[in-house]
Amino acid sequence: MSIEALTFDVFGTVVDWRASVAREAEAILAPKGIQRDWGAFASAWRARYQPAMKKVREGERPFVILDALHRENLVDLLNEEGISLSEAEIDALNFAWRRLDPWPDVVAGLTGLKRRYILAPVSNGNIALMVRMARRAGLPWDAILGAEVARAYKPQAEAYDSAARMLGLEPAQCLMVAAHPYDLRAAARRGFKTAYVHRPLEEGPGAEAAWPETGAFDYAVADFLALAEALGA
Amino acid sequence: MSIEALTFDVFGTVVDWRASVAREAEAILAPKGIQRDWGAFASAWRARYQPAMKKVREGERPFVILDALHRENLVDLLNEEGISLSEAEIDALNFAWRRLDPWPDVVAGLTGLKRRYILAPVSNGNIALMVRMARRAGLPWDAILGAEVARAYKPQAEAYDSAARMLGLEPAQCLMVAAHPYDLRAAARRGFKTAYVHRPLEEGPGAEAAWPETGAFDYAVADFLALAEALGA
Repeated sequence: MSIEALTFDVFGTVVDWRASVAREAEAILAPKGIQRDWGAFASAWRARYQPAMKKVREGERPFVILDALHRENLVDLLNEEGISLSEAEIDALNFAWRRLDPWPDVVAGLTGLKRRYILAPVSNGNIALMVRMARRAGLPWDAILGAEVARAYKPQAEAYDSAARMLGLEPAQCLMVAAHPYDLRAAARRGFKTAYVHRPLEEGPGAEAAWPETGAFDYAVADFLALAEALGA
Repeated sequence: MSIEALTFDVFGTVVDWRASVAREAEAILAPKGIQRDWGAFASAWRARYQPAMKKVREGERPFVILDALHRENLVDLLNEEGISLSEAEIDALNFAWRRLDPWPDVVAGLTGLKRRYILAPVSNGNIALMVRMARRAGLPWDAILGAEVARAYKPQAEAYDSAARMLGLEPAQCLMVAAHPYDLRAAARRGFKTAYVHRPLEEGPGAEAAWPETGAFDYAVADFLALAEALGA
């Protein structure tokens, strides 16, 4: 079965969340006289991401969108850091996730891929976040799929199943593109084809991820331009 | 509250479903020696659209996507017309709805509007249909909202409510754009602003819709270029 659609993880795979959140946090907090290691601040915020989604995945709480989880996690982090902000300032900082920069190869890669394939994020980010990010960064998505429409967080099966179903495709006609092996393995279990993209800087300097074993995924590439070439787009 | 997003009815407002379905039906059926008034064939198919959704709206059957309703309606119509097709031919004809042409002003109008506003269909069409149509016609949507993500057919409240909610906006920040007063009135009841677009040819020659009363909606325009001008985009 030929590939008709590419479904993308976004945080880390499409955008550099750590450097972008660090920049946004510094822009909002430094003028208030707050000084931190902003990369570490971004990582500390992000560290609360999987535990927050775990509660939804395991049914401890009903589904809520990622904007809401991000905000709860930010409030916890600010308390831990002893930083006091107004509700409006917390909202503004929380929307840092709408202002993430793509990796340098992304826009050119997606533009090429779009000529031949349907492109959609299958991210844990919600629609409002994904739409603002895409407009700012120039990401040419055909639709926004993922957690909010599935009402399930990856790696839950429904996040992948709903994406294929809503595109009117068999899972084997969908290629999941991600920098994270756990995401690709979960997609493969639902019948998706898989493309690993190496993003060595995702977690910041000195935290480079290892390439997966040869043959672990259908494709393994250095960036989206290499992916377009591998797919003949 | 200022307008942040434009939400669009699609069939009739963005695309000329009647002439396009007529063309597709003729292209598939005429080579088999079948002759009909193809505009009337398109209208007869479309006439089964509201009754089919009504059963879902009224809870007579669970939500199913429009591709499925279109196909059921086509099978009924073909039976009535005494036309016998294979399952594959029925599927191909059903996907005529993926190949609808936009009205001549649409792509230029949307391209201008997109610079300033979030653009999303809030259509009763499903995502697979909307994505294929948009790619073929060059419709620059930021997201695909509407019946499938709402699991409710317009004019049910949830179709509008879910669109505003998923965009992270108040209803008053959303402008519903449609050629059909019933759709605009339903959106207005949910707090949306409204823009009527006049599409005199939707139902074919000799079936021109009347303009609504002055003041019935926030905007009333002849096409998407006039809408862009009215909105200063």
